[in-house]
Amino acid sequence: MPDELSTAEKAALTSGSEFWRTTAVGDVPDVMLTDGPHGVRKQLTGADHLGLLASEPSTCFPPAVALGSTWDPALVRRVGEALGDEARAMDVAVLLGPGINLKRTPLGGRNFEYYAEDPLLIGVLATEWVRGLQSRGVGASLKHFAVNSQETDRMRVSADVDERTLRELYLRAFQRVVREARPWTVMCAYNRINGVHAAENRWLLTDVLRGEWGFDGVVVSDWGAVVDRVAAVRAGLDLTMPGPDPAGDRALVAAVRDGTLDPAALDTAAARVRALVARAADAAAAPVDADAHHALAREVAARGIVLLKNDGGLLPLPESGTSIALIGRAPRFQGGGSSQINPTRVDDLVAEVAALTSAPVAHVDGADPERAVAAARAADVAVVLASSGNETEGLDRDSLELPAEQLALIGRVVAANPRTVVVLTNGAVVLTSPWDAAVPAVVESWLLGQAAGGALADVLFGRVNPSGRLAETIPLRLEDHPSYLDFPGEGGHVRYGEGLFAGYRGFDARRQAVAYPFGHGLSYTRFGYGPATADTDGSGVVVRVPVTNEGARDGREVVQVYASLPGSAVRRAPRELKGFTVVEVPAGATVTAEVRIARDDLAYWDVRLGRWAVEGGAYLLEAGASSRDLRTAVTVEVTGDDTRVPLSADSTLGEWMADPRGARVLTGALAGGPPGILSDPEALTFLGSLPLSRLAAFGQGPDAAALARLVEAANA
Amino acid sequence: MPDELSTAEKAALTSGSEFWRTTAVGDVPDVMLTDGPHGVRKQLTGADHLGLLASEPSTCFPPAVALGSTWDPALVRRVGEALGDEARAMDVAVLLGPGINLKRTPLGGRNFEYYAEDPLLIGVLATEWVRGLQSRGVGASLKHFAVNSQETDRMRVSADVDERTLRELYLRAFQRVVREARPWTVMCAYNRINGVHAAENRWLLTDVLRGEWGFDGVVVSDWGAVVDRVAAVRAGLDLTMPGPDPAGDRALVAAVRDGTLDPAALDTAAARVRALVARAADAAAAPVDADAHHALAREVAARGIVLLKNDGGLLPLPESGTSIALIGRAPRFQGGGSSQINPTRVDDLVAEVAALTSAPVAHVDGADPERAVAAARAADVAVVLASSGNETEGLDRDSLELPAEQLALIGRVVAANPRTVVVLTNGAVVLTSPWDAAVPAVVESWLLGQAAGGALADVLFGRVNPSGRLAETIPLRLEDHPSYLDFPGEGGHVRYGEGLFAGYRGFDARRQAVAYPFGHGLSYTRFGYGPATADTDGSGVVVRVPVTNEGARDGREVVQVYASLPGSAVRRAPRELKGFTVVEVPAGATVTAEVRIARDDLAYWDVRLGRWAVEGGAYLLEAGASSRDLRTAVTVEVTGDDTRVPLSADSTLGEWMADPRGARVLTGALAGGPPGILSDPEALTFLGSLPLSRLAAFGQGPDAAALARLVEAANA
Repeated sequence: MPDELSTAEKAALTSGSEFWRTTAVGDVPDVMLTDGPHGVRKQLTGADHLGLLASEPSTCFPPAVALGSTWDPALVRRVGEALGDEARAMDVAVLLGPGINLKRTPLGGRNFEYYAEDPLLIGVLATEWVRGLQSRGVGASLKHFAVNSQETDRMRVSADVDERTLRELYLRAFQRVVREARPWTVMCAYNRINGVHAAENRWLLTDVLRGEWGFDGVVVSDWGAVVDRVAAVRAGLDLTMPGPDPAGDRALVAAVRDGTLDPAALDTAAARVRALVARAADAAAAPVDADAHHALAREVAARGIVLLKNDGGLLPLPESGTSIALIGRAPRFQGGGSSQINPTRVDDLVAEVAALTSAPVAHVDGADPERAVAAARAADVAVVLASSGNETEGLDRDSLELPAEQLALIGRVVAANPRTVVVLTNGAVVLTSPWDAAVPAVVESWLLGQAAGGALADVLFGRVNPSGRLAETIPLRLEDHPSYLDFPGEGGHVRYGEGLFAGYRGFDARRQAVAYPFGHGLSYTRFGYGPATADTDGSGVVVRVPVTNEGARDGREVVQVYASLPGSAVRRAPRELKGFTVVEVPAGATVTAEVRIARDDLAYWDVRLGRWAVEGGAYLLEAGASSRDLRTAVTVEVTGDDTRVPLSADSTLGEWMADPRGARVLTGALAGGPPGILSDPEALTFLGSLPLSRLAAFGQGPDAAALARLVEAANA
Repeated sequence: MPDELSTAEKAALTSGSEFWRTTAVGDVPDVMLTDGPHGVRKQLTGADHLGLLASEPSTCFPPAVALGSTWDPALVRRVGEALGDEARAMDVAVLLGPGINLKRTPLGGRNFEYYAEDPLLIGVLATEWVRGLQSRGVGASLKHFAVNSQETDRMRVSADVDERTLRELYLRAFQRVVREARPWTVMCAYNRINGVHAAENRWLLTDVLRGEWGFDGVVVSDWGAVVDRVAAVRAGLDLTMPGPDPAGDRALVAAVRDGTLDPAALDTAAARVRALVARAADAAAAPVDADAHHALAREVAARGIVLLKNDGGLLPLPESGTSIALIGRAPRFQGGGSSQINPTRVDDLVAEVAALTSAPVAHVDGADPERAVAAARAADVAVVLASSGNETEGLDRDSLELPAEQLALIGRVVAANPRTVVVLTNGAVVLTSPWDAAVPAVVESWLLGQAAGGALADVLFGRVNPSGRLAETIPLRLEDHPSYLDFPGEGGHVRYGEGLFAGYRGFDARRQAVAYPFGHGLSYTRFGYGPATADTDGSGVVVRVPVTNEGARDGREVVQVYASLPGSAVRRAPRELKGFTVVEVPAGATVTAEVRIARDDLAYWDVRLGRWAVEGGAYLLEAGASSRDLRTAVTVEVTGDDTRVPLSADSTLGEWMADPRGARVLTGALAGGPPGILSDPEALTFLGSLPLSRLAAFGQGPDAAALARLVEAANA
């Protein structure tokens, strides 16, 4: 930071000048940050952060819930690019996205803005979103950092998470995107993490984010997340939004003056904001082709649709000769809150369906069940549009059930016409059990953005062969969910009691039945898997799987690779997603899918060592069409990192005896000591948990000096 | 502490002189503490704490697992009295029991030494055990304080438990017994609690135990639990065992001298030990009637047996005319480790069975399945004695399955003779599913002490009508258990991830099927329940339930009362045991069971207030024969404690508006402020989680001075 700026000017740089802009200071201009992430929400007037006030029209792309279901990084990148073009055209320097919090619970009110219940899937997709956006000279804001997986009491609640879980699940996608895509900004969350507000969490914002991951951009607060400007700057937060905050600016100046804040901390924050502004100046705007973006929105939306069930091949619908009763209201296409977009246009599902068939299409809104039943009876196929309530930022749900009247409607329609397709529209999981037993075809369409109508028509008629896969488990009952007992917490705390066993990891660990497993999704064709092979080198593993399209229709298969390490020394989920790829396979053809697994992605967080470590051993890599439809497996031998923890006086007899050098040293030292303990397996079983130093309490162990010598010898 | 003792003498008083004795100092004699809790284990020689060395013969009463299943405080008291008589006769001042840790997981290696998975049941029973023992002038040692619910890494592992769970589940039985029975000593556990060793945990040993609960006795260490004598004394630990520990004594003297230890802390510890010794001197020994104690052991053992299943009334066996094949080895009757007793005699099951029937009894040990099958075929009824492995202190189990060869044996015997009774012998839960589907009668006999043989015969033939009830749930699968994902922990920590939902609380919360629920146990007669009634007063509730013996045989019913509070403001298990009583009901008679529920037992731990609180409202009290066999219910209105937390600047808009005074004050203050927020339900839903102070961040809220005035007005 050049010295020409005064402390007050530096302070001003670290807060907004108004709701959506940084502060211009001297020759540093101001720039705009605005809501995303699935469209550019540039407000026309006013200061609201709720999506309630009008904004300029922009393309409403499918929200992250649908992007996540595509499992397609290249496709997500194209969305990022398009968003970057629109942002640039609107003179927006930073688009506030992507939202990459892990979907811990299906009740999360903001789940529609998030990608998945798996950190690898989130991280890979969000990396490409950021790359796409930033390739256009617009900065991303990776949010909400971190562990912001619920809306209840969101500005105060402490997410209490043990460190291994934090590292392996809730921070892991952030780590990947920061390292691989270098986002311009990271947005700190509202909540607390293990008792400390994200905005004041130096461990999180500085030690981990910058120190370990090498982040060199700006940490911006979520709007209103900062309680104490001085504490925030001290923790590593650079830009407090919204503004203005003259009282906070003055507090910073005073803190520098009275020595409670290191001037270097303020210098650094101001310099980072200045660098951000400079970055934003580099890009040039180009005109946006709204039609092309709508077409992209439609393409992506179709790819996000998940065909859950299709008994008897009821779908796709023929484009002629089959009359259709379309029952229900037009599908919602986005959720509520700060991400709410004023779309450039909105597809009309009824018109889109009618455009793709020459047969009659009757539409009733479902409000009157008698009319719905009559329409279903009169048609060859009934399509029921069912929808959950209106998911929104700020409010978690309290049930996974569809509304009772919709469940009743489905029941009556399917009774009237067994050839019924249910199309679900929801931002987060709804239960499909037990009603889906009576319904031959179920389509999960999530929230699909402004081209939802066209995309749904494309899939219903087979213009697009569905290839979406669940990025989150659909449970049989809410009570089955790993998060159930600990959500939403109380008294200001939510314990992440299920620990490592979030999402499918928990269902698998408990061997629980689910309605539809993580990774599930049907196609209008069938894929056969040949035997997997694998090559390893120092950087990881490449798994190759021949995939044959055994049907008569071209299609895409999402090949998923899950890893496990039988006999691991640490507790693990039965299997974890470690790689995936989308392959396009023409009818009758065979394509070899190639899935790369980086060695780093095999690492677990070792709590004893306080770092990532790859455990050595024979990893089982299973490839398949879902987490519970594994078709082929290959075992690869991986050389482990050194994870030996030095023996100490606090190490147990069992640990000493399990270590070759330790056993030798100890056996020699205790040769004249208590009989039998080291040689008798039964006694060792019993006493194995005794720390060596504690033998002295029984009058039998080495004294302090002898202990020190033993420890030195064992670790020499 | 009289001043005549030197600091060194005081220090010596706070450690043992040898393995089982305190240190005699001046005119203070030494006393003996020795292992329990289901018998007096006074070692003949040597210093072993493993139960491996010989000890003087004493009555081996049923271990706590069987006592817990009696649900009978009066019976447990008689065991305490008998133990007190034996201890006194052997000049033992303190018997190291009862063990009252909550059975968090069925895999716990020491579960056989513990009572139940419910803190009320544990606390009520252990209170009577202590009262019985101490009525004879022998001190109890309430152990292991606290949260010592596993053996794995037991000397180091940190039980990481949130405070509400700690208070409501893991400390609650200790609190009850300390307050109601005033044990002479409490034994601190080996493990750490939330990172702090029990022996150095001032919060636990001083703030809670003495400050809140009023404990005035001695805190003794578990043998070898103390790492740092100075830290232990500072935390409130009085007596370090075993001894001698001259180095530790010297460290205490040095710490007093150099000022790192307050001399008063050492004075207090030494004075407490001295008071303990004085207490022990008061009692006089009386001769012990071994026959009477054996008879008591048999009575109690029979009462601890739980009849899980009895299809077609296969049990009781007739005392003539029905030949019996007894298949299997003599049942184990105690577990391994420090509680292992050298019994005064051991019943022979075969002889006891033969003594109660005039029909032929054939016994084979089951090692040769062919002989077992032949014996089963040749007899009218087969009785298979099945047993888990040898549970022991120091080692948790890794499976709930019976050994494979025993499962195979059961299968072959029941195929050969469908009239098969399986008698289970195990210190902790074994799975009964799916094999029990084919077995008409299953008897869970736990470990029953030296009179196991006679007691089993009594129940098999109906000399005793079984009335034992499960004090722990038998799950269908290990994976179903609430503790499953977080046991035994790793890296030195075990997270109690299931929190409040331990045992049946978790199964109920998730509405999971179980093999046999908490509280279950059949009788040879049937009981009908009339409608429950309830009276309340300031001290609690009395529930009265008429119980009718609808069969032809006298019997005992354990009437259990579970409470819930629909609409509670805090998360709760669906139901919690709040009271129980055993009623003896002659055949055909009706007896009104009276169950008292203390108001204190309705309290939950309020984490916001940091204290117990009774929530006001209409409590549903359900009475029945198990946690899942609820026969009658009554609702009682309970006046709540004041649980209002003062409003603050950090209180959310939602909290302000939910408080009548807060709403009035805030509405007035913001009348000229942002439109709609307080009057628009939708906006309030969205903004309800915003702390009032945070409004300022959006340029709309009161400033600091105005905030302070609002807070004052709201709480005035």
